[in-house]
Amino acid sequence: MEDRKDQRRAPLWDAMLAYRNRGPVRFHVPGHKGGTGLDPEAAAWLSGVCELDVTELSGLDDLHKPEGVIAEAEALAAACFGAERTRFLVGGSTAGNLAFILAVCRPGDVLIVQRDAHRSVYNGLMLAGARAVLLEPRLDPRTGLPCGLRADDVERALAKYPEAAGLVVTDPNYYGFGTDLAPIVAAAHRRGVPVLVDAAHGAHYGFHPQLPPSPLASGADAVVQSAHKMLPAMTMGALLHMQGRLLDREAVERALSAIQTSSPSYPVMASLDLARRQMATGGAALLERALRVSRLLADGLAARPWLEAARPESAVHCDPLKVTFRDRTGRLGGRALAARLEARNCWPEMADPVYVTLALGLSTSEDDIRRLLEALDEICAEPGPSEKELGEPIQNIYKSPLQRDGRRGAEVPEPVAFRFLRAGENASRSVPPEDAVGAVCAAAVVPYPPGVPLIVPGETVTAEAVRLLRAWQEAGAGIHGLNRDGTINIRTDGVKP
Amino acid sequence: MEDRKDQRRAPLWDAMLAYRNRGPVRFHVPGHKGGTGLDPEAAAWLSGVCELDVTELSGLDDLHKPEGVIAEAEALAAACFGAERTRFLVGGSTAGNLAFILAVCRPGDVLIVQRDAHRSVYNGLMLAGARAVLLEPRLDPRTGLPCGLRADDVERALAKYPEAAGLVVTDPNYYGFGTDLAPIVAAAHRRGVPVLVDAAHGAHYGFHPQLPPSPLASGADAVVQSAHKMLPAMTMGALLHMQGRLLDREAVERALSAIQTSSPSYPVMASLDLARRQMATGGAALLERALRVSRLLADGLAARPWLEAARPESAVHCDPLKVTFRDRTGRLGGRALAARLEARNCWPEMADPVYVTLALGLSTSEDDIRRLLEALDEICAEPGPSEKELGEPIQNIYKSPLQRDGRRGAEVPEPVAFRFLRAGENASRSVPPEDAVGAVCAAAVVPYPPGVPLIVPGETVTAEAVRLLRAWQEAGAGIHGLNRDGTINIRTDGVKP
Repeated sequence: MEDRKDQRRAPLWDAMLAYRNRGPVRFHVPGHKGGTGLDPEAAAWLSGVCELDVTELSGLDDLHKPEGVIAEAEALAAACFGAERTRFLVGGSTAGNLAFILAVCRPGDVLIVQRDAHRSVYNGLMLAGARAVLLEPRLDPRTGLPCGLRADDVERALAKYPEAAGLVVTDPNYYGFGTDLAPIVAAAHRRGVPVLVDAAHGAHYGFHPQLPPSPLASGADAVVQSAHKMLPAMTMGALLHMQGRLLDREAVERALSAIQTSSPSYPVMASLDLARRQMATGGAALLERALRVSRLLADGLAARPWLEAARPESAVHCDPLKVTFRDRTGRLGGRALAARLEARNCWPEMADPVYVTLALGLSTSEDDIRRLLEALDEICAEPGPSEKELGEPIQNIYKSPLQRDGRRGAEVPEPVAFRFLRAGENASRSVPPEDAVGAVCAAAVVPYPPGVPLIVPGETVTAEAVRLLRAWQEAGAGIHGLNRDGTINIRTDGVKP
Repeated sequence: MEDRKDQRRAPLWDAMLAYRNRGPVRFHVPGHKGGTGLDPEAAAWLSGVCELDVTELSGLDDLHKPEGVIAEAEALAAACFGAERTRFLVGGSTAGNLAFILAVCRPGDVLIVQRDAHRSVYNGLMLAGARAVLLEPRLDPRTGLPCGLRADDVERALAKYPEAAGLVVTDPNYYGFGTDLAPIVAAAHRRGVPVLVDAAHGAHYGFHPQLPPSPLASGADAVVQSAHKMLPAMTMGALLHMQGRLLDREAVERALSAIQTSSPSYPVMASLDLARRQMATGGAALLERALRVSRLLADGLAARPWLEAARPESAVHCDPLKVTFRDRTGRLGGRALAARLEARNCWPEMADPVYVTLALGLSTSEDDIRRLLEALDEICAEPGPSEKELGEPIQNIYKSPLQRDGRRGAEVPEPVAFRFLRAGENASRSVPPEDAVGAVCAAAVVPYPPGVPLIVPGETVTAEAVRLLRAWQEAGAGIHGLNRDGTINIRTDGVKP
């Protein structure tokens, strides 16, 4: 076992490279046969990866029953990230979120869920036919941005639903803001409730003293991380970590086997092996450099009075590699500012009506920051008419329909029942939002980003939710669940799912 | 629309390349930032693909709500493959099979399923909580190999279960053998039952007159094809085609959105766009060449009397690019023969106790065949002790527990109820197979390849099934569902799911 913990190794990658280096004659899938069958135009880009795009050959193990190099690579990842067991995911963090929910929830079970969860969490609720107590994240009073759950909200929900099948926390959120997870996990564990932390955005946490701690340090039973988001892994590569005895790990693994492809991409899996090696052997140094670059950006923003970086007081921790800022003059909303950056070839991660968010990486360079700051200076100097003012003070944009006028108090929301609508079951029609008040919502209405749902399927549409929807629209947000003609979908069968 | 049918275009690929060619500053995921953050050792292989490993940026559309270049690429694929609607899959054919089953089955519904279905079909049955009438494939009398469903078996099952939620056919099977689908689909349609054809192994069908027809020509409502298996696409890239008005396509698409990652791999999607372009613009010529190579192999096998290619009379069609053969002297079983080929750097697709199967591709060369034949000649000349004789005449190896002594007759099997075992629900124990007779099976027992289950979860274990399991073991097969200590798992809660 000592040998398996040598983090300088990359056993899966090495096995794939060894296969390639044999110069094999490939009478197996995939059909590009090591890249030789690729479209000639594509070969320049894809032939390298395709030489390593292999299948479950002798010596290359099987993701669904790992006993060889994949098992070794997963054990190295577990040791590196501080888990008892780590599974490689090729279906993104989505696969991990779905697997946890399908494993712990029987139909009708209650799951306690942070409302600004990723849509895979809502999809899991639907597929499981579960009910969810949806807890609002804390909103920062000045910026309005969501900053993670309150432990006392979780306590109250657990007291009311001690039989909950699980707790699903999203931390850090898409903006990189989060809270102290340990007391939240402890509260759940006191009730015997297993906790999933969707840390899709925080795979780099815990690798440097200036970064927030690893979500695993909270004691969470399961932690999902999108290695592809903040580490140098390929898209779709993610990690599911497990620890402790509360969670039935075999049930989670059964669910993973059921929902993930039987033909996983070896390059994606190898990129997890390689990213783990990079972090284990040189992560702190890479992050030291990235933090320097991040400070350069922070200094650059601070030196430009028309810009303001979001530093929400309500966040217990902020990811220094996620940088969120706005035009404080109000001339440019977040989406307009992002479009101008894109026109100057600087491509942000996301923009909402107010803010632009950048995702820095381990290889983001000082030159990248210089080019960004130059682009911002050009945008600042750009003549042109003033943009439409934001329709609502920014600190109200992010409010949830349940939080109006500070009314959000001690009460725990009623569970919302989710179900997956099968063939012929989509008894819904589309109506203008104002006409939907009082009806049961058929499809989630979610300003995206930031992705905090205004209305979820199964909830009754409220006037306040519609008012907020209009505020988001006026502010220029993209709204998932809003049809092209401006209508939203409500159930016509009268029944909540 | 004329423009969208110009098959020389590859709109998704072009958009990705255009983004890369701008030399963008990437403040977005994935974290490798165009490959600059990769492990230096990996960069030589992965930096090409990582320059194109992007995310849902402006102009790059969204797989879950395609309106731009992905929608165009899917429309081109639909036109090329002859579907009304085609969806790109990044979770393999698994995603398409799961989506169809989740869309059409309510818990307890009956699905009529070809027994030698891929495990994703069984996983779909479990996740949906459906019941399945499992129809045996026709077994070729001489080779014993499965060759697709009998139309009269399907008719009888439909007559007994006219309320069936769907029919799931696997054609061609892993060996490349299949049947005439049109009468099977027609029988289902007469009862208003939608049909999924899992044609994972047949993405190249219909592109050359010497190949079997496209599975879509049968009129099937949904067809799944693993583009990565027989076309030059990257692993995990697959296609879900739909046509007709019987299937609720929106329900299938809801299921796809629920189970597939929200971070799909752009290179995998682009490889679907490119493979479609290759097939549409030059597929017949590529296949002409591949067929020539295939004939070279067939001639080479025919010239070696110790080898015999499997040409089952019971198959209505055989894939000329899948070549299955055995050592007719019985000296080497399929797995031993495959191991010797691997030792000579020729890597087969699979081997069962009797046969070795090779998957040729569009780029398999005459030189590849020459190297294979040389390896076979070396193996033939190899001195050494004779291998253990096969424990059972080959034509009996592939028999199902239900087909002993020709007893398989007119009766339609009882439905088997499937359910997904959640946390704490795996009330099972492991016992030697002989002690399991009469108990309810908890985990499928499947000789793999070829992957036709001997016992599925929820079925009662029969003495005949155990006898066949022992025959497979003696023949040296790999058995999924057999524990390392030789036991199998049975339910201890006494109840069928």
